[in-house]
Amino acid sequence: MNLNDAIQECWDKIDEGQVATYIPGLAKVDPYQLGIYLFDVTNDKQCQAGASQVRFAIESVSKVITLLYAIERLGLTAVEAQVGTRQTGFPFDTILNMEITKEIHPLNAFINSGAILISSLIEVQDDQTPFEQILDFTRKICNDSEITLDEGIYQSELRTGDMNRSLAYYLKAKGALNNDVTLSLETYFKQCSMMVTCESLANLGAVLANDGVAPWNGKRIISSAAATYTKSVMMTTGLYNESGTYSVKIGVPTKSGVGGGLVAAAPNHYGIGIFSPALDYAGNSVAGLALLELISKELKLSIFKY
Amino acid sequence: MNLNDAIQECWDKIDEGQVATYIPGLAKVDPYQLGIYLFDVTNDKQCQAGASQVRFAIESVSKVITLLYAIERLGLTAVEAQVGTRQTGFPFDTILNMEITKEIHPLNAFINSGAILISSLIEVQDDQTPFEQILDFTRKICNDSEITLDEGIYQSELRTGDMNRSLAYYLKAKGALNNDVTLSLETYFKQCSMMVTCESLANLGAVLANDGVAPWNGKRIISSAAATYTKSVMMTTGLYNESGTYSVKIGVPTKSGVGGGLVAAAPNHYGIGIFSPALDYAGNSVAGLALLELISKELKLSIFKY
Amino acid sequence: MNLNDAIQECWDKIDEGQVATYIPGLAKVDPYQLGIYLFDVTNDKQCQAGASQVRFAIESVSKVITLLYAIERLGLTAVEAQVGTRQTGFPFDTILNMEITKEIHPLNAFINSGAILISSLIEVQDDQTPFEQILDFTRKICNDSEITLDEGIYQSELRTGDMNRSLAYYLKAKGALNNDVTLSLETYFKQCSMMVTCESLANLGAVLANDGVAPWNGKRIISSAAATYTKSVMMTTGLYNESGTYSVKIGVPTKSGVGGGLVAAAPNHYGIGIFSPALDYAGNSVAGLALLELISKELKLSIFKY
Amino acid sequence: MNLNDAIQECWDKIDEGQVATYIPGLAKVDPYQLGIYLFDVTNDKQCQAGASQVRFAIESVSKVITLLYAIERLGLTAVEAQVGTRQTGFPFDTILNMEITKEIHPLNAFINSGAILISSLIEVQDDQTPFEQILDFTRKICNDSEITLDEGIYQSELRTGDMNRSLAYYLKAKGALNNDVTLSLETYFKQCSMMVTCESLANLGAVLANDGVAPWNGKRIISSAAATYTKSVMMTTGLYNESGTYSVKIGVPTKSGVGGGLVAAAPNHYGIGIFSPALDYAGNSVAGLALLELISKELKLSIFKY
Repeated sequence: MNLNDAIQECWDKIDEGQVATYIPGLAKVDPYQLGIYLFDVTNDKQCQAGASQVRFAIESVSKVITLLYAIERLGLTAVEAQVGTRQTGFPFDTILNMEITKEIHPLNAFINSGAILISSLIEVQDDQTPFEQILDFTRKICNDSEITLDEGIYQSELRTGDMNRSLAYYLKAKGALNNDVTLSLETYFKQCSMMVTCESLANLGAVLANDGVAPWNGKRIISSAAATYTKSVMMTTGLYNESGTYSVKIGVPTKSGVGGGLVAAAPNHYGIGIFSPALDYAGNSVAGLALLELISKELKLSIFKY
Repeated sequence: MNLNDAIQECWDKIDEGQVATYIPGLAKVDPYQLGIYLFDVTNDKQCQAGASQVRFAIESVSKVITLLYAIERLGLTAVEAQVGTRQTGFPFDTILNMEITKEIHPLNAFINSGAILISSLIEVQDDQTPFEQILDFTRKICNDSEITLDEGIYQSELRTGDMNRSLAYYLKAKGALNNDVTLSLETYFKQCSMMVTCESLANLGAVLANDGVAPWNGKRIISSAAATYTKSVMMTTGLYNESGTYSVKIGVPTKSGVGGGLVAAAPNHYGIGIFSPALDYAGNSVAGLALLELISKELKLSIFKY
Repeated sequence: MNLNDAIQECWDKIDEGQVATYIPGLAKVDPYQLGIYLFDVTNDKQCQAGASQVRFAIESVSKVITLLYAIERLGLTAVEAQVGTRQTGFPFDTILNMEITKEIHPLNAFINSGAILISSLIEVQDDQTPFEQILDFTRKICNDSEITLDEGIYQSELRTGDMNRSLAYYLKAKGALNNDVTLSLETYFKQCSMMVTCESLANLGAVLANDGVAPWNGKRIISSAAATYTKSVMMTTGLYNESGTYSVKIGVPTKSGVGGGLVAAAPNHYGIGIFSPALDYAGNSVAGLALLELISKELKLSIFKY
Repeated sequence: MNLNDAIQECWDKIDEGQVATYIPGLAKVDPYQLGIYLFDVTNDKQCQAGASQVRFAIESVSKVITLLYAIERLGLTAVEAQVGTRQTGFPFDTILNMEITKEIHPLNAFINSGAILISSLIEVQDDQTPFEQILDFTRKICNDSEITLDEGIYQSELRTGDMNRSLAYYLKAKGALNNDVTLSLETYFKQCSMMVTCESLANLGAVLANDGVAPWNGKRIISSAAATYTKSVMMTTGLYNESGTYSVKIGVPTKSGVGGGLVAAAPNHYGIGIFSPALDYAGNSVAGLALLELISKELKLSIFKY
């Protein structure tokens, strides 16, 4: 299939969404952008189209990376003891389930409470702050040494992050947080403020698709178990409240961020990075998901069908 | 792998569970049973071991069949308008989410409220009651003409079904139920009381695994879209509150019932039926899931890994 | 104060509400009615104005009477073991609190689940159905032998009562219901369908205000403890979600019904019956509450102030 | 009645409770203390017994004082716009109701979220911090110039206050907090750390009982409306989850604190201060409530009965 045609076909979907407005750094982004980068792990072929090299804020897609890094540092068993693999049925920034069920562990690693908890698990090591370690790991797994923190985005996240502070203090009050609140949130807000491209995310997806081995050099970056675990959680909870909807429609483990990014990992087939900043009500890239659905159908990627 | 060895390896898991006790028909079942039936849809080879021909109550595994039948009768779009594809984060017999979010549609087809709603969608047709139609369809998709209703189980379900009555009247009060409450629950309780074997469920799983086509005669029984949709929902919510846990561990779309049955569908590979009546806290067959996990690893079935 | 002037002053409030529409028997009532009946228990003086002799459906005001009758039959301790004295913070027809807290007893006797439970406590006695006993007791405590069941209202309540059926089956499933669901709901719907006047309710209020003794003949109808308990619960939860609001504004134990009735009991001062069928969002008579607030201020009835 | 006898009668109740243990300053208090101070506003007679002059941490009883001060500063209407007058049905430190109902205003001023919000309404004025103003007002309404902050209690509250921080950031995220989080919580924690005696609280209760006028000098300290409003809220929500229970048993507006203090205001009769540090499960003084119940019965104080 021709990627430019695919982008053309999904372009009008942009008008159905709108860019995130809660911070200036996201609100000022031009909504009329759509890019894709495909990495075929069976033959290392790569192709791209549209805004595939534009840098944008990684936001919640970083939850995938920090989860993988936490698993590498602490082991899967330790991480599984801290966070579940279940959907909540509620928005990503609430602790309703924990309040109702009296559980002290967040239901999964991709709602905000779970992601903050995962970020709090990374401790200072060899004089490196948690974020410095995450940034290094991000550059490595995304095969992109130019990923940096956008200070403006980070400062904005800090300024508007009161609900996340509420979640973090809730976790701390329940004894579930590892690092202190300030460090945990600094790590969390900074990891959300990294600037990536479709290519960076396609590389991340390719590692996941390739069972943890970087296809560009054949070296294992994460364990097979970490890759499998993470793809499963992406399928179940990667697209906020609409995860189930797209599990049916697309059938490929995917994680979205309010910066407009999507990473998808079709096991043993493709790593995919997509960018389009206009979001649906749930916080997912509208045109991005339309494009991913089209690609999934064309390339027969649904793991429930093929 | 040798199936008898696999059964041997998982046998002790039986002691970690207990049979369902809420009705006599289930409480009196001998817990020390474990059977499996495998149907390889790539070559039609079948194998079995243990209690693979013992009949047991299908219970919640019937939710898969009624969902498929409703999709065939009404179309996928109509069914999707009635029920979601999301987990709830709560036990299967509560309407907490609906109460909190004010939604009038159950979050998925496998919690009780969702399953009762799906059962209510089947109307009398050609003088056949909804259950008679479902029974016919079950015999067809399970390739098993000997499936019948166990009257004792059915009467017990009727007697102890007050929470389901509460759910049904709740749906009716919200205008979400199609048939009246009595007929909807008669259908629901009867479908739960059908007696099946591992072989019946393996055949059901084989149709799902084979994109909707019966591998035993090459005829399409359900649409490709229905098969894909159902496998996705099985993965997300098929094992009650523990769906996420086993999504990671097993990675194969699976649905359990409190009769001790499991149906699994590994896309384009295997249909699997398993029976072992001792259940974990959540209502899933303990030894059955252990066996499925072992099989999945041996046969490389996880759709997130292979 | 002149009661006719008071009615005049509150008349325009009628336009801020609307009559209950969920059943024809209530929907067809003329909203432009406002009546009041005052019974001064210190001197037995009574006065009335407006639609004080119009009959209307008692609806939820009957919850006061059945609660009192259950206490007389079973004792206060037994009733307190079945139902709490707490507000829920939620609408009157939900079991959200019970679902969340896992309690099997409704939080108070005036939400629907609590009222249905109380109705289920009344057993057949001396060949009298529970409702026949409640009707007799109602005539006695309201000093009004002409109170009868309105068959049209009752049939309508039966037809539209699915949410109450859901609540009743929920209670039964939890083992909290005494009578069976059908009898409990028959009792509940019938007690809601009794036709009363402002005078009937003022008499009821006078018994409560007079510590349980009927001021018209000096005979004790209910125990002092029952009267105190019930006035306390009326203050805390008598006006649905707005109980706290009117506790501050009016300061007199009051119970409302969607038929437009209000009963108030100012301890050792007044029994008050009011009728005006246009309701606020919460189900309370708009003009009725305005009139009660005016009367409370004029006669210095607030138990928090005087 | 003889107060010493009353104390004797309730003494054994101490063994049914235990002192608050979440901070050292409370955990080290001797549980075997019980004191009472009665202020009869009809004749200015005062009497006391037991540990009536022992200083203890005011804790949640301060919520009454800050509420009154906020009303004096901002007016009742402004305060009513910020906080409800309803119970929640849940523990005092949760925002479950707000999360479920999407309301941005706490349901009442005596749950922690509501109290923090009220504290945040007090702004710096004439170079006085909010707490300095509250301390001045407390000394005045308690007629006790020796009330001071216990620095040890305050530091402990700060250290263990993460759930309150979570609530405060939640309110800020919803736009409901007036001052910033740090100042609001400093005010809140400091007001909880004031050291009072039974006599201080009896004076506070006497002002409330006397419609806002200090009986010791005839000067109005708070408006009549503020006194009425606050007594109503004390009745409905003053004793945490057990407010309804004691509304029935005691029938006098009361507020408790985990320091073991109780203030009660019997309208136009008595202001009462009680201290006994062993608490029930809900955080109320066990022996203190037993003593208050006894006193209420002896002196015929229940506003629902007398």
